[in-house]
Amino acid sequence: MTKKYLLAPGPTPVPANVLLSMAMPMIHHRAPDFLPILESARAGLKWLFQTKNDVLILCSSGTGGMVASVTNFFNTGDKVLVVNGGKFGERWTKICETYGLKVKEITVEWGYAVKPSDIESILKAEPDIKGVFMQAVETSTGVYYDVETIAKIVRNFENTLLIVDAISALVAHDIKSDDWGIDIMVGGSQKGLMLPAGLSFVSISDKAWKANESSRLPRFYFNLKKERDNLLKNQTNFSSPVSLIIGLNEAIKMLQAEGLENVFARHARLANATREAVKAIGLNLFSKESPSNSVTAIMMPEGIDGQTVYKNLREKYGVTGAGGQDKAKGKIYRLAHLGYADTFDVIVGIASLEMALKGLGYNIQLGKAVAKAQELLMK
Amino acid sequence: MTKKYLLAPGPTPVPANVLLSMAMPMIHHRAPDFLPILESARAGLKWLFQTKNDVLILCSSGTGGMVASVTNFFNTGDKVLVVNGGKFGERWTKICETYGLKVKEITVEWGYAVKPSDIESILKAEPDIKGVFMQAVETSTGVYYDVETIAKIVRNFENTLLIVDAISALVAHDIKSDDWGIDIMVGGSQKGLMLPAGLSFVSISDKAWKANESSRLPRFYFNLKKERDNLLKNQTNFSSPVSLIIGLNEAIKMLQAEGLENVFARHARLANATREAVKAIGLNLFSKESPSNSVTAIMMPEGIDGQTVYKNLREKYGVTGAGGQDKAKGKIYRLAHLGYADTFDVIVGIASLEMALKGLGYNIQLGKAVAKAQELLMK
Repeated sequence: MTKKYLLAPGPTPVPANVLLSMAMPMIHHRAPDFLPILESARAGLKWLFQTKNDVLILCSSGTGGMVASVTNFFNTGDKVLVVNGGKFGERWTKICETYGLKVKEITVEWGYAVKPSDIESILKAEPDIKGVFMQAVETSTGVYYDVETIAKIVRNFENTLLIVDAISALVAHDIKSDDWGIDIMVGGSQKGLMLPAGLSFVSISDKAWKANESSRLPRFYFNLKKERDNLLKNQTNFSSPVSLIIGLNEAIKMLQAEGLENVFARHARLANATREAVKAIGLNLFSKESPSNSVTAIMMPEGIDGQTVYKNLREKYGVTGAGGQDKAKGKIYRLAHLGYADTFDVIVGIASLEMALKGLGYNIQLGKAVAKAQELLMK
Repeated sequence: MTKKYLLAPGPTPVPANVLLSMAMPMIHHRAPDFLPILESARAGLKWLFQTKNDVLILCSSGTGGMVASVTNFFNTGDKVLVVNGGKFGERWTKICETYGLKVKEITVEWGYAVKPSDIESILKAEPDIKGVFMQAVETSTGVYYDVETIAKIVRNFENTLLIVDAISALVAHDIKSDDWGIDIMVGGSQKGLMLPAGLSFVSISDKAWKANESSRLPRFYFNLKKERDNLLKNQTNFSSPVSLIIGLNEAIKMLQAEGLENVFARHARLANATREAVKAIGLNLFSKESPSNSVTAIMMPEGIDGQTVYKNLREKYGVTGAGGQDKAKGKIYRLAHLGYADTFDVIVGIASLEMALKGLGYNIQLGKAVAKAQELLMK
């Protein structure tokens, strides 16, 4: 018997009470039993997204929410700006191009954050840009982009929407949608929200709804206007994934009991301990600047392959983190501290990494990184 | 305390072992723990769809599978034929029109089945029709269309695909995809498969894959070619809804233990008992021909509103069936016998309907319909 630990940046562990809430007998999504649950989950999402705007719930993985953010607000030929600093920035470009948008990319070297001033310069030079697409946390590099500064720039351009993929950032980072002026923010269930994959969430500002009126891209399954019409009747457009929404409601209650400030502080504390612990044994972060509080991307030592570390941890120790994607493959190991994560998840993550690296020939003193994490986690 | 019974044509009840299987701790969809589960679920779907073709699993409600069946195989301006005999036939038209297809409709009066010879005449007269879209069971009217005869007609037209929405039919009706020559068949999780909503399934013939090569409609989230490429690596294109796929695997195992012939015979037996029982108390079926084995649509007596019956059953007796949709609203009550359904689900459905009707002033002898159902269910 090997006991299993899930420390990947999605899916993340689902708390037992959430799992069991989803094991309740099925109820009908159009019947009164379900309606207060849906209503409560929607109110909870508004609280979490820090917005007065509607947050729509879609039955899809997070990518479905990203697609909806393109097809409901733009037209073929629209010029948009995409921040591409990793695998998920690249995904924005692919989606936009699929629907005939003209994409201008800001290419950011993997491991670095986009410079808000670069976005400002481009928008000033090209005011016909209709949307800026970015990640909050670029999961592939572990970098958090400065959403606040960027949002405060973009909101000055009245014909430009800011679309933020917050799939990996939500719950771990304090993102003030309304205060900062984010037009569209996308979330997913299998990350900070501590649920299985299967739900995506999209918040939409008045400015974005205005753009929706003149958007003519084809959409049927992800028709946000229709979802909104159904929301007013406390319904969803198509069959609700009832069990996941019951779980969502339960997960949000846990976060609300903790309080938003405490939730963010917990993630900051776990992330900081993880970062300092790996530095204590001579490892570098792959995120050269602005490392996220969701996931820590760790450079592997010279001569040790990140995929080997990932597999060794999984097979020998039962710990599932994540390797690198695309150009980071083999170079890094990623350890998440996202959602249902606390002190001893970091300890397990760090202790197991030390053991795997030592076993693969990296010359370290066992327990050194753990001690650093302990020290910081006691505070 | 009112004990609750779910007898709607989706969502349907989820067996306790399936619910509990989905409450297993989360595992990663790219890690080896999950891969045999995904593989087994996929093999099970091929068995259930009676096909050697790939059956792709999408994270969406059934409508997502319907959209995928349009956007992956056609082009703007393609002429297609839609069988519209209810709310879900209408949905095919709406989806096709959203993506710029030219729709010719065969309008079938609600409660009747399409005549296969009508389809044949149209295809002969207009051989440029690229696809025929139909339901197997039109859930809104409870009618089963003659998929076998239609498939055997359409397969003679080499440039025409047959697309069957089997969302409500699957598990209840014996549909031989390969033997009959169905090109694309769509299923959903929350019907015969005894799961919560959140998964759709699409089987695809070689003829359809051929059409996929020249299809240029925009698609990203529902890109079936990419799903197939991932299937070859035993992956899904985006984050798998892990818990639902674990449940799917469990549900299919139950059906396999019963055997396909027995599964169909059970549904036929329950449906027949339901139909004869309601006729025994003077009620008529809304399905004037070819009533389905998934759901029975029952005409309400003169002066009794179907929505009142539906609400009375739900509120007074805890039994959730379904009312009518759109033009059938108020006229009918629908009782499903689909998925995790057996003898005493029919008894509860019929007994509660008798009690509700009696309470609302319909002059019947209590137990008469129940007795008819008992008699037939003893066989």
